[in-house]
Amino acid sequence: MQKGRLEAFSDGVLAIVITIMVLEIKVPHGDELSDLKPLIPILLSYILSFIYIGIYWNNHHHMLHTVKHVSGSILWANLHLLFWLSLIPFVTGWLGENHFASLPMALYGIILLMSAIAYFILQRIIIKAQGKESILAKAIGKDLKGNLSPIFYILGILASFYKPWIAGIFYILVALMWLIPDPRIERTLRESHKN
Amino acid sequence: MQKGRLEAFSDGVLAIVITIMVLEIKVPHGDELSDLKPLIPILLSYILSFIYIGIYWNNHHHMLHTVKHVSGSILWANLHLLFWLSLIPFVTGWLGENHFASLPMALYGIILLMSAIAYFILQRIIIKAQGKESILAKAIGKDLKGNLSPIFYILGILASFYKPWIAGIFYILVALMWLIPDPRIERTLRESHKN
Amino acid sequence: MQKGRLEAFSDGVLAIVITIMVLEIKVPHGDELSDLKPLIPILLSYILSFIYIGIYWNNHHHMLHTVKHVSGSILWANLHLLFWLSLIPFVTGWLGENHFASLPMALYGIILLMSAIAYFILQRIIIKAQGKESILAKAIGKDLKGNLSPIFYILGILASFYKPWIAGIFYILVALMWLIPDPRIERTLRESHKN
Amino acid sequence: MQKGRLEAFSDGVLAIVITIMVLEIKVPHGDELSDLKPLIPILLSYILSFIYIGIYWNNHHHMLHTVKHVSGSILWANLHLLFWLSLIPFVTGWLGENHFASLPMALYGIILLMSAIAYFILQRIIIKAQGKESILAKAIGKDLKGNLSPIFYILGILASFYKPWIAGIFYILVALMWLIPDPRIERTLRESHKN
Repeated sequence: MQKGRLEAFSDGVLAIVITIMVLEIKVPHGDELSDLKPLIPILLSYILSFIYIGIYWNNHHHMLHTVKHVSGSILWANLHLLFWLSLIPFVTGWLGENHFASLPMALYGIILLMSAIAYFILQRIIIKAQGKESILAKAIGKDLKGNLSPIFYILGILASFYKPWIAGIFYILVALMWLIPDPRIERTLRESHKN
Repeated sequence: MQKGRLEAFSDGVLAIVITIMVLEIKVPHGDELSDLKPLIPILLSYILSFIYIGIYWNNHHHMLHTVKHVSGSILWANLHLLFWLSLIPFVTGWLGENHFASLPMALYGIILLMSAIAYFILQRIIIKAQGKESILAKAIGKDLKGNLSPIFYILGILASFYKPWIAGIFYILVALMWLIPDPRIERTLRESHKN
Repeated sequence: MQKGRLEAFSDGVLAIVITIMVLEIKVPHGDELSDLKPLIPILLSYILSFIYIGIYWNNHHHMLHTVKHVSGSILWANLHLLFWLSLIPFVTGWLGENHFASLPMALYGIILLMSAIAYFILQRIIIKAQGKESILAKAIGKDLKGNLSPIFYILGILASFYKPWIAGIFYILVALMWLIPDPRIERTLRESHKN
Repeated sequence: MQKGRLEAFSDGVLAIVITIMVLEIKVPHGDELSDLKPLIPILLSYILSFIYIGIYWNNHHHMLHTVKHVSGSILWANLHLLFWLSLIPFVTGWLGENHFASLPMALYGIILLMSAIAYFILQRIIIKAQGKESILAKAIGKDLKGNLSPIFYILGILASFYKPWIAGIFYILVALMWLIPDPRIERTLRESHKN
């Protein structure tokens, strides 16, 4: 199985997911500033989800960079990840529509958590396939970010029933954590090229 | 004709098909758990269709792997397959909207059956073009799965007018049958590389 | 300018155009056969448009195959073509919604005509850029199909105000004419490879 | 990081953005000419936005042509640009829906301005990464168009509260300015290939 087509398909799905979210921002009928006001929470949730899909696309790219042979299990673990990410437009729309109410906030966190778990499974399968000298395992190292993210998601899910805005802070924190460029994989790759 | 562009176009269509299905999961206005309840059948039908598109993408990829020259008939047989697959979001939405009623269940099976027939036609045309030493013909062999699938679809279509859930079981069985990784083509390919 | 990215972008737009048309087939609320009946004209117009986009994608591919350097004018002539093709989902939806009434039928023909003109302009620009020894000019030759199509479209547009179904026959005839595989470009290409 | 996947992802997003705008042209229920009349402003705004996305795709392509190594900051500056461009279908729909009223006209200009700023940031980051001998810096030169565009957008935004059609003229002027083929980058590239 060629890696190129897996990447192309994933890129296609992620490009569509990131773009169809904008269809949730329904064009208002009026032409006044007050007509735009109800769209603000929808826009805010769109921005957050846009960043999340961007992060996943970026990390996905780096991870696949270390893959040589695509097996059937990698393929399905990848589709499993795309499945959860494909639900992000739905929860984003629900979140914005309901002005960050408790349940939509919790469901948003659950979809993020499931995506993180799907990403983790894909990572495990790739590392297992690469064997002991796995370049990906080296690149990830202790994976502080990867371990912190699900904890923050769970805290966010729990917090959303108490004060939804606390959940929002948790989700924003995880996004910021990943936005900071991660030099680990690139560095390890560069070193492995040297040897 | 280059194979690359046929693959890219097919990947694009399949990526869009798999993603726009999510647009059928309409964002509910309320923010309570009861507002999500009517979405459960829509989500379930989405999951089944997502797996089916994944299977088609996977098998399509393997099949085209054996193709060298893309003729006009391969191109149109491929578009014919994409046509039936493009109707899956519609029947998926209808199925979920009507809580797995008889007629939607039957139509779902009919679209699956037509897709399988279109896939079979494409396979025949490729094998014919490859001649006696067809690598694809060898790879498929007796093609138990390929022969069982249409029978299960037909049984499902018939069953849907009696008890729709029996049809559901048939459609899930076919999906599970294909989800189990198929080492035939990969093995045959590997052997042909050796010689 | 690299040809690859022009092809990829065109493939992307065409893949989306061919797929979003299916969104016009709105999921009916009922689950009976009578609920599907109003969808028949929408499905029929979808099939015709699907074939037209398939033809354009196919011919576009063959035409670009002869291009080496993509200039700014080729790029914009290509976008001009994509613009008219992007309106096909709209006219397809309007045609199906109004059961092949006169005006939608005429507008459908107008969009097909404008697409054909845009295609012709793109062809001219490519041939001009290739100079006297243009491989594309040779491949097209007398271009019977290319000359007949706009005449049939115009006849269809005129006929649609008299009897819409006559217009439909003209549009179907053009589609059938192009569906028959066109060995000219491939043959000329093969010969040019020999020399 | 490979440039190819960044280009493919950007192409995908732009192809979707340019195509989903057409979904804003809702299919009218009637089949008479008067039913099409309210769609004229929507079609006009669609044409303008189609040209803008075409210009961005074209310039984006030329700019990335000079890039060799894609860093994390280039990647996020690129996503930032795609974010603003992804909002164009929304403002296009709002503009057409309200027949070019003041506020939609101003917001259209604001999104164009933000896209231009995002493009400028991406350009700066690429030039900085290329160092003193930046091929992109040479290619852009004094960048008259790049400097005039934001001024025209701001004039348009201001004018939209006075006479919206003046804003329209400013936006059309910028589009025309960029439509005229820009030989600078290609020429500089060609010269750098010679040396």
